[in-house]
Amino acid sequence: MAINLARLEQFKLDRVLNEDPLSHSISVLGTIPGRDQEDKRIPAIVQVTKTPITAEEIKDIQDVFGELEVIGQNDVYHWVLGWLGGGRSPDVKITIVENATEAHIRKFTKQSWTMVRESPQLYAEVVKPHISAFPPSRLQWVYNILSHESEADRILFEDPSPTEGFIILPDLKWDGVTMSMFYIQAIVNTRDIHSLRDIRKQHLPDASKYS
Amino acid sequence: MAINLARLEQFKLDRVLNEDPLSHSISVLGTIPGRDQEDKRIPAIVQVTKTPITAEEIKDIQDVFGELEVIGQNDVYHWVLGWLGGGRSPDVKITIVENATEAHIRKFTKQSWTMVRESPQLYAEVVKPHISAFPPSRLQWVYNILSHESEADRILFEDPSPTEGFIILPDLKWDGVTMSMFYIQAIVNTRDIHSLRDIRKQHLPDASKYS
Repeated sequence: MAINLARLEQFKLDRVLNEDPLSHSISVLGTIPGRDQEDKRIPAIVQVTKTPITAEEIKDIQDVFGELEVIGQNDVYHWVLGWLGGGRSPDVKITIVENATEAHIRKFTKQSWTMVRESPQLYAEVVKPHISAFPPSRLQWVYNILSHESEADRILFEDPSPTEGFIILPDLKWDGVTMSMFYIQAIVNTRDIHSLRDIRKQHLPDASKYS
Repeated sequence: MAINLARLEQFKLDRVLNEDPLSHSISVLGTIPGRDQEDKRIPAIVQVTKTPITAEEIKDIQDVFGELEVIGQNDVYHWVLGWLGGGRSPDVKITIVENATEAHIRKFTKQSWTMVRESPQLYAEVVKPHISAFPPSRLQWVYNILSHESEADRILFEDPSPTEGFIILPDLKWDGVTMSMFYIQAIVNTRDIHSLRDIRKQHLPDASKYS
């Protein structure tokens, strides 16, 4: 592993990028010691998300909580704060982006959303140039998967054909446990599909191949 | 406090009503010992929600985590699971509904949502009869607040006028800490306002009263 926890523990906070109480997640920008030069600090984004809670975890309240504190009561309603006890599943999932660029920072910063109906003209004049301008470095994680340099032990299925082939593996955003958030991805070997709009008849494999 | 933690700890799970990984919350139906007769078990809903995470909590990673475990890495991205250390804020907020009725169970059960444009006819034929059919027991928590029987120590502002008066206090759904989820409610003394549609000119107080 290229990150060691000692480096993460030396994270210094600069500013909060996004604090989202609904998704129980927070993203902050700061610095960690460099990968090779420990005395040089590099920018890093740290996103911390509380893990979901499962039925399995609370089926026996007595064994689950180390501490409980009643905070309010009204009629049949009661409110209690709880601290989970030892032996519990992880409290948080942390995503770290080292050498964070402006593009990474934008991606993790709180943003408002707009719905756009994409016309052929909009696609040609705005979307396609935007996709073409992507620096290859931002897709390095995709090529790492295709070349088996990263996450090779996580591959669920692979068809190695350079034209029709693909790899199926769990997305690292998924915690690998919570089935209600199950999230796997398929990554194709061909590099001529940049979005749904690039899909042609020739990309459809002979389905009988997998039956 | 009418609930003691010993009763909560004897909760026995019957079934899961709703498991929502996005809001980090789970609602289950089960039984707890009765308030007065400990040998008689009564139905209870327990909703457990992970607390949000704040910038304050993770500003110094070294002191925050008791344990960290790297689960994956690809290019500049790293994924880590973390267990928070001692002295942390509560892990979960728990809401308990004792003597849970069918109506409570429906309210806490996973449901699909539908958007309806309410016409005057729909209001008269469906909504108003529905509101009128509410058993007074379901509003007991409101009357408890107005009579100072419950949550009196939490009142932020009160105008005691029986016609124009109201009480402002934090909703118990709010954890009282996370300002980005700040949630207070105003409850009016008059009992002739059942929804926005019942508001008349006479309900508007002289605003200069509060300036």
